[in-house]
Amino acid sequence: MKAGIVMGSRSDYKAVERAEKILDGFAVDYETRIISAHRTPSAAEEFARGAEEEGIEVIIAAAGKAAHLGGVIAAYTPLPVIGLPIKSSTLDGLDSLLSMVQMPRGVPVATVAIDGAENAALLAVQILSVKYAQLREAMITYKANMEREVLRDDAEFQSEKI
Amino acid sequence: MKAGIVMGSRSDYKAVERAEKILDGFAVDYETRIISAHRTPSAAEEFARGAEEEGIEVIIAAAGKAAHLGGVIAAYTPLPVIGLPIKSSTLDGLDSLLSMVQMPRGVPVATVAIDGAENAALLAVQILSVKYAQLREAMITYKANMEREVLRDDAEFQSEKI
Amino acid sequence: MKAGIVMGSRSDYKAVERAEKILDGFAVDYETRIISAHRTPSAAEEFARGAEEEGIEVIIAAAGKAAHLGGVIAAYTPLPVIGLPIKSSTLDGLDSLLSMVQMPRGVPVATVAIDGAENAALLAVQILSVKYAQLREAMITYKANMEREVLRDDAEFQSEKI
Amino acid sequence: MKAGIVMGSRSDYKAVERAEKILDGFAVDYETRIISAHRTPSAAEEFARGAEEEGIEVIIAAAGKAAHLGGVIAAYTPLPVIGLPIKSSTLDGLDSLLSMVQMPRGVPVATVAIDGAENAALLAVQILSVKYAQLREAMITYKANMEREVLRDDAEFQSEKI
Amino acid sequence: MKAGIVMGSRSDYKAVERAEKILDGFAVDYETRIISAHRTPSAAEEFARGAEEEGIEVIIAAAGKAAHLGGVIAAYTPLPVIGLPIKSSTLDGLDSLLSMVQMPRGVPVATVAIDGAENAALLAVQILSVKYAQLREAMITYKANMEREVLRDDAEFQSEKI
Amino acid sequence: MKAGIVMGSRSDYKAVERAEKILDGFAVDYETRIISAHRTPSAAEEFARGAEEEGIEVIIAAAGKAAHLGGVIAAYTPLPVIGLPIKSSTLDGLDSLLSMVQMPRGVPVATVAIDGAENAALLAVQILSVKYAQLREAMITYKANMEREVLRDDAEFQSEKI
Amino acid sequence: MKAGIVMGSRSDYKAVERAEKILDGFAVDYETRIISAHRTPSAAEEFARGAEEEGIEVIIAAAGKAAHLGGVIAAYTPLPVIGLPIKSSTLDGLDSLLSMVQMPRGVPVATVAIDGAENAALLAVQILSVKYAQLREAMITYKANMEREVLRDDAEFQSEKI
Amino acid sequence: MKAGIVMGSRSDYKAVERAEKILDGFAVDYETRIISAHRTPSAAEEFARGAEEEGIEVIIAAAGKAAHLGGVIAAYTPLPVIGLPIKSSTLDGLDSLLSMVQMPRGVPVATVAIDGAENAALLAVQILSVKYAQLREAMITYKANMEREVLRDDAEFQSEKI
Repeated sequence: MKAGIVMGSRSDYKAVERAEKILDGFAVDYETRIISAHRTPSAAEEFARGAEEEGIEVIIAAAGKAAHLGGVIAAYTPLPVIGLPIKSSTLDGLDSLLSMVQMPRGVPVATVAIDGAENAALLAVQILSVKYAQLREAMITYKANMEREVLRDDAEFQSEKI
Repeated sequence: MKAGIVMGSRSDYKAVERAEKILDGFAVDYETRIISAHRTPSAAEEFARGAEEEGIEVIIAAAGKAAHLGGVIAAYTPLPVIGLPIKSSTLDGLDSLLSMVQMPRGVPVATVAIDGAENAALLAVQILSVKYAQLREAMITYKANMEREVLRDDAEFQSEKI
Repeated sequence: MKAGIVMGSRSDYKAVERAEKILDGFAVDYETRIISAHRTPSAAEEFARGAEEEGIEVIIAAAGKAAHLGGVIAAYTPLPVIGLPIKSSTLDGLDSLLSMVQMPRGVPVATVAIDGAENAALLAVQILSVKYAQLREAMITYKANMEREVLRDDAEFQSEKI
Repeated sequence: MKAGIVMGSRSDYKAVERAEKILDGFAVDYETRIISAHRTPSAAEEFARGAEEEGIEVIIAAAGKAAHLGGVIAAYTPLPVIGLPIKSSTLDGLDSLLSMVQMPRGVPVATVAIDGAENAALLAVQILSVKYAQLREAMITYKANMEREVLRDDAEFQSEKI
Repeated sequence: MKAGIVMGSRSDYKAVERAEKILDGFAVDYETRIISAHRTPSAAEEFARGAEEEGIEVIIAAAGKAAHLGGVIAAYTPLPVIGLPIKSSTLDGLDSLLSMVQMPRGVPVATVAIDGAENAALLAVQILSVKYAQLREAMITYKANMEREVLRDDAEFQSEKI
Repeated sequence: MKAGIVMGSRSDYKAVERAEKILDGFAVDYETRIISAHRTPSAAEEFARGAEEEGIEVIIAAAGKAAHLGGVIAAYTPLPVIGLPIKSSTLDGLDSLLSMVQMPRGVPVATVAIDGAENAALLAVQILSVKYAQLREAMITYKANMEREVLRDDAEFQSEKI
Repeated sequence: MKAGIVMGSRSDYKAVERAEKILDGFAVDYETRIISAHRTPSAAEEFARGAEEEGIEVIIAAAGKAAHLGGVIAAYTPLPVIGLPIKSSTLDGLDSLLSMVQMPRGVPVATVAIDGAENAALLAVQILSVKYAQLREAMITYKANMEREVLRDDAEFQSEKI
Repeated sequence: MKAGIVMGSRSDYKAVERAEKILDGFAVDYETRIISAHRTPSAAEEFARGAEEEGIEVIIAAAGKAAHLGGVIAAYTPLPVIGLPIKSSTLDGLDSLLSMVQMPRGVPVATVAIDGAENAALLAVQILSVKYAQLREAMITYKANMEREVLRDDAEFQSEKI
């Protein structure tokens, strides 16, 4: 099982790295590429067209500003594409969010929160878990751990306050 | 293969029906439920907890305003959850969009465009197609048909203009 | 008389602490919990269902991003729920505000300003003061003190300017 | 037990009437006034200062555009004030929402959704229920009825679909 | 001299037609195509790559929602690309505007007002007028006529008021 | 000739001071007060009712968040009131801007840019200049100086570039 | 005493007419012109430069979309300029509001609510009343009438409800 | 071939300098001026009226807040005008963007991204390339270089990851 990750520029790696760590935690294989929808449109097309054959089963596209990367990839592949809008220096990420989520009828991009890199990866895992039972199990464990962590935070917080 | 659809109220069915038609086109089984995150929280929990066992593999949650339905369902299930923000009478759908997409770390909701019911269903199909090869084929055909349709629109438009 | 405070994560305590100080000033008892609507939904339900029995009479829910916590708590309790939207790293708090305030018909969340922790607590006091006459008195005094403080600020400002 | 309702102009009654119906359902007494923060500031002050003595225990303020009414009332009374932002002809209600909810430290206005008249009334009931046990019971019943209604909608929807 | 016009779907023609009329008025030749960035990505690429050879010297791209069309075309051609954001059923055109104008460094799209079809065409004429002196003359005349028209409107208005 | 300046809190003085400097430059007398619409409503009313008698001819009201100060002052005085919206820690000043500018019919507040303290003062001068011919002259000079300053900036910039 | 009114196009007269009626009520003379900042820049300059000499003492500028008219007029005249942002077919008036109110340092435009034509006129009257005592008196009467009207609305509303 | 650059104030040069560097790279001559639409309207008019005669073929206008500069220049010249909205201290650049892009029918401003100085220059080059074949060639090379750069970034990134 393998995810593809594309990011519009090297500077997006700060966010993307957090996604990779989640995938590592689930032992999901991935390939991360720097591909720009506007500066390397042919690479984007080639990547998207070839992704399925490369064994990629879900794609995460991270981009900022007029974030077309997710849509451009989704145009060329039948695979599910997850959009990760990156906040840039103006408009607080609203531009990337709208550019990703408001896709026209026919070509969805599964958009997560602005800078929500972990959630992009977790969504990828959930999608893969439709097929891979071990990921379903791992996701159930992950959710249980998360729950435990918050419960422990709460318990610690209670004891500190006394 | 089966999708679960939940909508916050009967009035959301106008949008949801368009999603159902897409799923029908792909011969994806589905179960549509009226469940409110705030008025029937127990039903929401019960649905979410039982979804996997019911054979549901992906869930679409449609809701307007402070659209918590997707997040509430996602809290209780390891399944991928698709958020379909519905435009209501104020704020032009921005409230539902942000309430769905800006999920905190750990619990993603795969959000599509405001009122983008067809895309919610197509995303569900793409997610299921990770497992079901026939859906991958059907999606490739769907995309090819869409392409053909636009090309035909273009051709007709060209001929009308002469 | 007792208030319940829930916050989505430990990091919200920076704001919540300001609310606690206000409650301390009014000698209102409170219990502060870290509960996540999405990571510990069962704890949220349990807390909300049990709050009344625990002697809690009003609840403050602090959360950021897609801030469902207030709505989720309000779904399970007849108590008045105050929503305190927390500004996070993107969208300047607009997402949490809309996720809290735009609650659908039937389940209100009494929303205060983004990061308005003191006001969340003061609103809790005002709500409790419907029942507890001493809080009404204390609130009248608080308002009088606030007035005096601004008047003194003004007086000092006038004397500095001469 | 009695609520005070103020609205900025007669035209707001379309929304306010829905709030009155909810209060009627809970047998909560109320007094509805047309008072403008800007055109009748003295009436606003007089109403706010006298509300407590009149037996009013919670106030709902409905206003549109730069909706100062809630804040102006809250300045003069220790009672809890609920803000009901009304959508007017421009900006889709965002102006009234922000004018009500973003109150500065010291003087909260408990804001509900834009045009959310029913929720303003339900919040008033919840606030009064801190003191009046019968309202707590009635609210629990109301929530149960709401739940039943959605469940029935769902059941009907299921049977229609067969 | 020739302009290329692409629109994301047939429904955008209502706006695009107004652009064509302007171009007709300036006797600028044009070719209008229905091309979707997401549904016919290959057609978009082919059109963009071939535009220069086809004698096209400036391109107008009209699209709504997550309006990637301008960016996708601009990725494949060195020609100046004008973006015409179309208002669709939600968000009042803000999504298309931001998706078009917020292009990342390296690939500009010259964006005009939402639904500003006439201006898209006038900008195309201005761009072509850099090369074609007769268009510069025509544009000067156009501006003079516009001025005269407003002056006449004013004069008529003055006389009506007497 | 005399202006009144009111600010919601001491922290607004950072902006207000820039307004005072402009008034100093025009030798316009002023009185600056810290008055909160919500914490000192009586002081606000008293100030507004007495302003005319105090010889004040125009009022500047500076406030942040739900900036009601301008509206509250304007409710009690026939004098022209200038609203200076102050940016606070959330929403980038949009809340104060809308709370000031969107005043309902009957009670205008002359709103200037967010944090536009100099412009609030210049507008006060322009308003006073309707009556005081020397201020009209001074304003003409001010505008000429501004023009000269920009022209000099431009000239310096040109010479630097050589 | 005389006001100048400029509007960007004939279609703005629907709003401007309401401003004229207010001025009529105060017996303030006015001259209304159709002048476009962009289509008739010379007329705008000429009008603005000559306004003072024409006896105009305050100017109202009404415009939609990128509403530069107020700013352009203000650039050429020392007179106070009131900006009346007009809502057009997209963005709900937010564009005109920001284009008018966010004027850079040095050249204020006194902005009123979107489509707030009556308030633009009332502000003009308040500005003129700095000089003309009878307008101050008339404004006091106007405010008293407004107050009476709301009080009467309230009284009627009370009697209807019995 | 020559571009004109105008900026509203010296502080905009930080962005404008990046535009100049792009033009330098394409050996496009340019003249950069500090001209304020509001403080030096006559200089703006003079510049715009004389631009064509000065040999200028395209104009870039950079301005912040209520960014009228592009529109004011465009009113006086038939040349294509590129609007570069500058982010200032409030509203994250949304005000300048809307003030530039939402131009009324008849007078377009070709707007690029907020702070998108490089894109403003690249658009100028593309516009000039309609006439100057060597710029078309240079633009094709520029795009190829950009592509290569991203491909190299990607290659480096891949090798680092091993």
